[in-house]
Amino acid sequence: MSEGKPRGGRRGREARRASRQDSGAVALPFIQRKIPLTEVLTEEGLETIEANAETILAEIGIEFREDKEALALWRDAGADVDGERVRLPRGLARTLLRTAPREFDQLARNRDRSVHIGGNATVFAPVYGPPFVRDLDGGRRYGTIEDFRNLVKLVYQAPALHHSGGTLCEPVDVPVNKRHLDMLYAHMRYSDKPFMGSVTAPERAADTVALAEILFGADIVADNVVVLSLINANSPMTYDATMLGALKTYAAAGQATVVSPFILAGAMSPVTVAGTLAQILAEAMAGMAFAQLVRPGAPVVFGTFSSSISMQSGAPTFGTPEPTLVLFAAAQLARRLGVPFRSGGSLCGAKVPDAQAAYESAQTLLPTLLAGANFVLHAAGWLEGGLSTSFEKLVMDADQLGMMQVLSQGIDLSPDGQAMDAIREVGPGAHFLGCEHTQNHFETAFYRSSIADNNSVEQWEAEGSLDTAERANALWKKMLESYEAPPLDPAIDEALQAFIAEKKAGMPDSNI
Amino acid sequence: MSEGKPRGGRRGREARRASRQDSGAVALPFIQRKIPLTEVLTEEGLETIEANAETILAEIGIEFREDKEALALWRDAGADVDGERVRLPRGLARTLLRTAPREFDQLARNRDRSVHIGGNATVFAPVYGPPFVRDLDGGRRYGTIEDFRNLVKLVYQAPALHHSGGTLCEPVDVPVNKRHLDMLYAHMRYSDKPFMGSVTAPERAADTVALAEILFGADIVADNVVVLSLINANSPMTYDATMLGALKTYAAAGQATVVSPFILAGAMSPVTVAGTLAQILAEAMAGMAFAQLVRPGAPVVFGTFSSSISMQSGAPTFGTPEPTLVLFAAAQLARRLGVPFRSGGSLCGAKVPDAQAAYESAQTLLPTLLAGANFVLHAAGWLEGGLSTSFEKLVMDADQLGMMQVLSQGIDLSPDGQAMDAIREVGPGAHFLGCEHTQNHFETAFYRSSIADNNSVEQWEAEGSLDTAERANALWKKMLESYEAPPLDPAIDEALQAFIAEKKAGMPDSNI
Repeated sequence: MSEGKPRGGRRGREARRASRQDSGAVALPFIQRKIPLTEVLTEEGLETIEANAETILAEIGIEFREDKEALALWRDAGADVDGERVRLPRGLARTLLRTAPREFDQLARNRDRSVHIGGNATVFAPVYGPPFVRDLDGGRRYGTIEDFRNLVKLVYQAPALHHSGGTLCEPVDVPVNKRHLDMLYAHMRYSDKPFMGSVTAPERAADTVALAEILFGADIVADNVVVLSLINANSPMTYDATMLGALKTYAAAGQATVVSPFILAGAMSPVTVAGTLAQILAEAMAGMAFAQLVRPGAPVVFGTFSSSISMQSGAPTFGTPEPTLVLFAAAQLARRLGVPFRSGGSLCGAKVPDAQAAYESAQTLLPTLLAGANFVLHAAGWLEGGLSTSFEKLVMDADQLGMMQVLSQGIDLSPDGQAMDAIREVGPGAHFLGCEHTQNHFETAFYRSSIADNNSVEQWEAEGSLDTAERANALWKKMLESYEAPPLDPAIDEALQAFIAEKKAGMPDSNI
Repeated sequence: MSEGKPRGGRRGREARRASRQDSGAVALPFIQRKIPLTEVLTEEGLETIEANAETILAEIGIEFREDKEALALWRDAGADVDGERVRLPRGLARTLLRTAPREFDQLARNRDRSVHIGGNATVFAPVYGPPFVRDLDGGRRYGTIEDFRNLVKLVYQAPALHHSGGTLCEPVDVPVNKRHLDMLYAHMRYSDKPFMGSVTAPERAADTVALAEILFGADIVADNVVVLSLINANSPMTYDATMLGALKTYAAAGQATVVSPFILAGAMSPVTVAGTLAQILAEAMAGMAFAQLVRPGAPVVFGTFSSSISMQSGAPTFGTPEPTLVLFAAAQLARRLGVPFRSGGSLCGAKVPDAQAAYESAQTLLPTLLAGANFVLHAAGWLEGGLSTSFEKLVMDADQLGMMQVLSQGIDLSPDGQAMDAIREVGPGAHFLGCEHTQNHFETAFYRSSIADNNSVEQWEAEGSLDTAERANALWKKMLESYEAPPLDPAIDEALQAFIAEKKAGMPDSNI
């Protein structure tokens, strides 16, 4: 699937040949979309946004804060550096981005679960970042490392979650400066899907790379993307020292970063879609171009988290039409730039996994697929504007992801798909239930939901009148009960644990 | 918007100039979509489906049951009539459909609320047909005429429901043979939006036209579409005498019919999408072509209700990927045929307005808009596979329809939309809340949901931890309390009531 730029298909295929491992859980490969893209902006509209982004970069500039090395790199590259304000001559960012790979593979320790980032691929990853968890039994509470491990196990078992993600919840019972070690170990030990790295400090990014070297082997890490990490811009038009530090660490190691303007339109960007788009493009281009200054060819993803705010209360809102338009158009801008795109997910502002949660999530998720997003963070489990990870919603959303995977494959036009023999066999006024064609497809026809109840109201009442969240509660518990860890070489496991123990022993607990 | 075929734009504009009436409720005009269509089939795929549909019509044929007049019309048109089986030579249906208008207006008694059917227009109409109603207070129960009136009043007050619909619920407390009179009166008296006619018997269709003549004036009805009615095929490949009788009555009166194969794939059609599409196209073409035999130029809409069944239980399922693909592709087929298209809605199999209801509804509704459906029945209130009309879901779905209306308008690329002055004014690291551009857009920026709760969890808990359905329950009650009937000329009202009283007096109660 590589299209002429370095890194990607060839290396990915080689990697897949290496060191396959058996794994118990059913997993779907990442999506290779066969349906056309939905696009909302014309060529002329796209050119307007691109011209405005260049104007932002050239005239207003981006702040790179508390990072002298970053400012020096920019000065050397020909930017106008005034204090911490970096102004990029028109075209500079786009020129620098020529070295960024158009698409690339991220390896998983189980190579069957490696993913492709870019092109017609879509990779679903779970919610990232909530300090709280919520389930029907325990209500809303701070996340713990036990919650985190359980979430890793659930994601591992969800077939259409192609990626283990990163901070599935904040394990608040572990000191901040040691949290990343326990989170990374959980991803490495309890799943064999690809995962994300720590970005809360440069040294934690370095720990991520070091642990990946133990898990994959240093030679593999040197030549392949094995970690994908989330670098948020401080919108508007600012990158802070923490994010720049992590970005530099990963870029220098040849590891991938998702450079994401974090936008609540109306607060961090203008209240209009076109204004928000120009700002997002400018911010993302500046961040991704900076990664190329650190190491030409560093794999980057054009990310954006974009929602809007209630003009009455200032609260973030989700699943509304304006962010959907931003999503569709930003995907178009990323394709024109020639880099993979991350956005969307199953976002909502609801406090519980009810109808609001589902409307808003579906109204975000389907556009995410149709827009052609390549990497989809928050694809399952997001609740309450990202403040809570919901165990019930995780499995509810994961069911929707399975549907998106089927939808992405379009219509089978083979003779069997056309089914003319079946229509001839059945004829007017009869039914298709017993015909040969139906019988042949009995096992595979139609997506089979893990959550939906399609029985009669009488049967549903007889089974306790459970609503969707209650059924989901039973499902995730059943999944945890049947969880089996994927095999991991005991020597590697021991080395991971030894590294972590040494790191932890070497520093006092700290909550910054 | 008319594109060369008769009936439509010109007449519609004239009609809108006539007899405007004031109306209290806020209403949005029908959607004129500005975003591009999402299409899933290539030219080659479409040609394959079209060729298969012609094969079905020519080789298998369609049954027109218990209607000698229909068979005679087909024989005269050159079809091969064998018993009740009608085989159409390749191309005949498409040729007959040349007289069908590409698009047309349906007048409302308040001409500001007249709708355009076809082209880039989308018209949202509420749920049609459920025998039961459900609300949080009364649970699930048979619908009554009081429920029906309340539903008309709620639809009247929902801005993005452009159409009053038809059988919002079955008023089971009224005898079957008199029900249509009370339903039509409710639409005419309690709303001023366009409405649908009775199809359960030819004489009830005739009553519909007669009542419309009282409401609009016979001269208006003679020259305009004032009623749009739903004619379901008995899939596979069958039309029954009841539906044919109603279709003939409406077509002869120049009134519009939505000719809809009713498909649960796997039962009424093959288990594959491509097979289902060919059958839908054949059935819809035969029905719409028949309307042209009755009266060339009769306005018709290519309809389809398509879902699939659970292969395990046989129960209908909704919001799954296969029907979504049918929806996208059938819209393409209708456009190539040059007739308006009806499908989609806010469909679900859930028993209560919970997360399943919302996921499935959103996963049907957004594709409905993106596919370019022109008339959307079941756009709000549908629950339990169409067995129940939910008061709560009606207002929940209506909120989603408002979002679809905003989404349909795409991105404002005016200088104000581009917001470069705002970006210049605010600059890096600040926020946009107080800037002039934001203040100017304070009232109109971002869709404002009537149902979503975006407050903090603390505030939400302080307000009683209400879930979406509970908030919707409060909303529809408030709407009914504030309902004010649109004005109606007392002489017309009296004439409508007199017609109905006379009809009712002229026949004994009957439940067939």
